Amino acid sequence: MLDFEHKFDAKIGKKAKESIKKSFSALQKERSSGKIGYYNLPENGFSLLEEVEKYKKTNEYLKENLIKDIVVIGIGGSSLGTKAVYELLKDQTKTDKKLYFLENVDPLDITRTLKKINKNRAMFIVISKSGSTIETTSIFKYIMEKYKLSFKSKSDMQRVVAITDNGSALSMLAEKNSIKQFNIPLNVGGRFSVLSAVGIVPLALANFDVNSLLKGAMAYVNSFFEGKENRLLEKAYFYSKVAKQYPINVMFTYSTLFTYFNQWYVQLWAESLGKIDKIGNSVGLTPIHLIGSVDQHSFLQLIIQGPKNKTVTVIKIEDFKKPIKVPKLNLDFLDKVDYINGHKFNTLLNAECDATYETIIDENIPADCITLDKITPENIGSLILYYELLTSAVGQFFEINTYDQPGVEFGKVKLVKKFTK
Amino acid sequence: MLDFEHKFDAKIGKKAKESIKKSFSALQKERSSGKIGYYNLPENGFSLLEEVEKYKKTNEYLKENLIKDIVVIGIGGSSLGTKAVYELLKDQTKTDKKLYFLENVDPLDITRTLKKINKNRAMFIVISKSGSTIETTSIFKYIMEKYKLSFKSKSDMQRVVAITDNGSALSMLAEKNSIKQFNIPLNVGGRFSVLSAVGIVPLALANFDVNSLLKGAMAYVNSFFEGKENRLLEKAYFYSKVAKQYPINVMFTYSTLFTYFNQWYVQLWAESLGKIDKIGNSVGLTPIHLIGSVDQHSFLQLIIQGPKNKTVTVIKIEDFKKPIKVPKLNLDFLDKVDYINGHKFNTLLNAECDATYETIIDENIPADCITLDKITPENIGSLILYYELLTSAVGQFFEINTYDQPGVEFGKVKLVKKFTK
Repeated sequence: MLDFEHKFDAKIGKKAKESIKKSFSALQKERSSGKIGYYNLPENGFSLLEEVEKYKKTNEYLKENLIKDIVVIGIGGSSLGTKAVYELLKDQTKTDKKLYFLENVDPLDITRTLKKINKNRAMFIVISKSGSTIETTSIFKYIMEKYKLSFKSKSDMQRVVAITDNGSALSMLAEKNSIKQFNIPLNVGGRFSVLSAVGIVPLALANFDVNSLLKGAMAYVNSFFEGKENRLLEKAYFYSKVAKQYPINVMFTYSTLFTYFNQWYVQLWAESLGKIDKIGNSVGLTPIHLIGSVDQHSFLQLIIQGPKNKTVTVIKIEDFKKPIKVPKLNLDFLDKVDYINGHKFNTLLNAECDATYETIIDENIPADCITLDKITPENIGSLILYYELLTSAVGQFFEINTYDQPGVEFGKVKLVKKFTK
Repeated sequence: MLDFEHKFDAKIGKKAKESIKKSFSALQKERSSGKIGYYNLPENGFSLLEEVEKYKKTNEYLKENLIKDIVVIGIGGSSLGTKAVYELLKDQTKTDKKLYFLENVDPLDITRTLKKINKNRAMFIVISKSGSTIETTSIFKYIMEKYKLSFKSKSDMQRVVAITDNGSALSMLAEKNSIKQFNIPLNVGGRFSVLSAVGIVPLALANFDVNSLLKGAMAYVNSFFEGKENRLLEKAYFYSKVAKQYPINVMFTYSTLFTYFNQWYVQLWAESLGKIDKIGNSVGLTPIHLIGSVDQHSFLQLIIQGPKNKTVTVIKIEDFKKPIKVPKLNLDFLDKVDYINGHKFNTLLNAECDATYETIIDENIPADCITLDKITPENIGSLILYYELLTSAVGQFFEINTYDQPGVEFGKVKLVKKFTK
C-alpha cells in the first residue's frame, strides 16, 4: 500500500482543473494510440514472464541449475531499473543467484566486477535497445575474448542472452548465432523499459517475484487511467507551474536500499524533462537523490537555509519487518541519548524521517511524502509506475517530447569522429 | 599530478583581483589564527600516523594480525571521506583487511552489512565528533549486544577504538573503559575531517598508503598558501558571482571508483555553503554528482538542453594503468562500432569524457576540467585539499560561516522531542 501526502499549495482552481483534464486526455491518447508503450508493459509482462519460465526449462545450463552469476551488460536504461529492483528485493528473495552489472567502460570498474564472477557458473545478458551501444558492445566483446566464448559453440551461446529491439544489429547477431533473444517493444524508450524484457528477464532468471512486481505496477496504472490518481496530476501541474522558482526536485528516501531506485528516478526525470519545448525554450527540472538519515548530516543544511529553490519528496517505509532494537544499554556519560534505548531501529529511522519532513515544512519548502507500508514487490511495482506517470504528466504540462533525447546524441557524434577522422 | 583547465569567462578585472586578494588574506588569517584547523591536518597527520603504527604494535589483536574486518561506525563527516579514499585506493593497496561502514540506522542496511562481517576477526571503530551522535551510539550499542562485547573485558575493549573530540561523552566513556581513543582537533569540523584521525586511523589500520595521501595533501595546501593556485580562487570568485544564474554545480567524474568521492564533495559543498549570510539572505550552491560514461545516458540530456542553470566540472583520469582492450572482434551486423576495436577501454572512456566536455562547452555552459594523470594516494590527497580550499574560498566570497550547520540542528531538536515529550 502506498500513501501520498502533499504539503504544497497546488491552488487547483478552474484553470488548473481544465489543464489537468487536458493532460489526462493527452496521456490516455498516448496510451491508446500505441505511440508510447510503457503504459502497457505491466499487462504484457505476464506473458513475457511465461516465456522466461519456458526458457528456464529448455536452456541446458538453467534447467540443470548450473548458473549462479547473472551478468547484465548494459548502460543507462538497460541497467539502472533492474539494479534498483534487485537491491530493494534481494534480501527477501529466495535465490541462489546473484546479479552483477557491467555498465561503465572504466577499466578499473570492469576488472573489479569481473573478479567476483565465476566464468563456469555465469550467464551473460547483453542489453542494448538500439543494438549497438558502444559501451555495451565493447564490454561484450571483451567478455567473449576473456572467457574464450565462441560463437561457433552452441553450448557457449546457451550462456548468452540478448535483449534488444527486434531487427537491431544485436538482434540479427543473436539470430545468426543461436543466441536466445528477448525484444523490447519499439514504442518503449530505454529509461521507461524496466518492466519490459530489460528488467523482467534478469530478475525472473534470478527467481525474483516478478509476478507481484507486475501486479503492483498494473494496479497503479489501471487506477491512474480510471481517474483515481488525481493527486499525481496535481503534483505534476504544480511542478510545471513553479519550475522557474523551484528548478530542483529532491527525492529524500529513508532507506539505504533505495540508493539505486533514487538513481533510476534521477535518470528518468532528467533525461525526460530536460528539453527544448515547442517554442524553443529550454525547460526541465533538476533531480537530486538523497538517502536518510545519512544525508541529514550534509545536504539537509542546504535545503533548510540555502536558496529556496527546491521541492522535496520524502519517501518513508512504515515497517521494515526487521525488529532489531537499540539495546537497553546505559553507557557512562552517554545518558543524553538513552531516550532511544529499547526502541526499534525502524522507529528511530522513521522519527528522523518525520522530524526532517516537519522541519522542511516549517521552512515553507514545498514538500510531499510518499509512504510505503513495507518494501514489497507490489509496492515497488506501483512506485515505478507512479514515477513514470508523473514524468509523463510533467512532460505534458511542459509541452515537450518526453521520450526522446537529442542532447545526448551530440556527444555521440563527437565520439565517433574521434576514432574515425 | 593534477591539471586544471577552465573554460568559463571569469572576467578577472581590477575589482575581481582585489576581491580575490582579500579572500586569500582572510583564508591565511583563518589558518594562522588557529580558528580553522583543517589547513594543518596534512602536516599534523604524519605524527598521528606514527601513533597509529605504534598502536598496531601494542594492540593484542593487531600485532598478531588477527583483524581482517575493520568496521567503521559513523555517519556523514565520520564516514564519507574515508569511504571515498577506501574505494579509490583499495585495488592498489596490499592488504588482507576490509573496511565496512555502518552509517544508517536503516535496519535492513545494518543487517545486510553485518552479514558480511566475521565477529572473531573484526575491529570496531566508533566515530563521532560530538561524541553523542544518535545514529552512531545506537549502532554501537547494538554491536555491543549482538557480539556480546563487554566493557568489563579488557580483551573485548581491545577490539574497539573511539575517534572523537577530546572531552566528549564518547571520549570519557573510552577513558573509563580502557578503549583506545584518537582525537579530532576541536577546530576541525566533521566534513573537513577526513585527514584527521577520522580517516587516517581506519585507513592506516588497513595498511593504506596514508603517508603519500598526506604528502599530496600537504603539497597542495602549501602550494595554495604560497600563492600558486590562483585558478582556484578565480573559480571560487566566479562561482560566487554567478550563483543566481548558475545555482547548480555538477561534478561529472569519468571513473566509477569516484562514486563516494563525489558524494564526499556533495556533503562538503552543500553543508558548508547552504547558509544565511550576514545580511540575512539565503545563499548556497547545489552540488550534483555524476559518473561518466554512465550518466551520459541520462543526466547529460538535461545539462545540454535543459535550463542553463548549471556549471560543470569534468574530472578525467588520464591513465588508468589497466591496459585492457576492446578485442579486435568483428561481430556480424555490428561493424558500425568496429572503429573501437583494438583500443584500450581507457582510451574509449577518455574519448567519451572529451566528447562530453566539448559538447558542454559548445552549448556555452561554464565548465572546467580537472585531470589526474593517474589515481594515486598523492593525487587524491591533493584533490581533497583542492575541494576543501575551494569550499572555504567560495564561503569567503559569500561572506558566510562556512564551518557551522545550524539548519541541521532544527531537525535534531524535533527528533529528541518525539522521544522525550
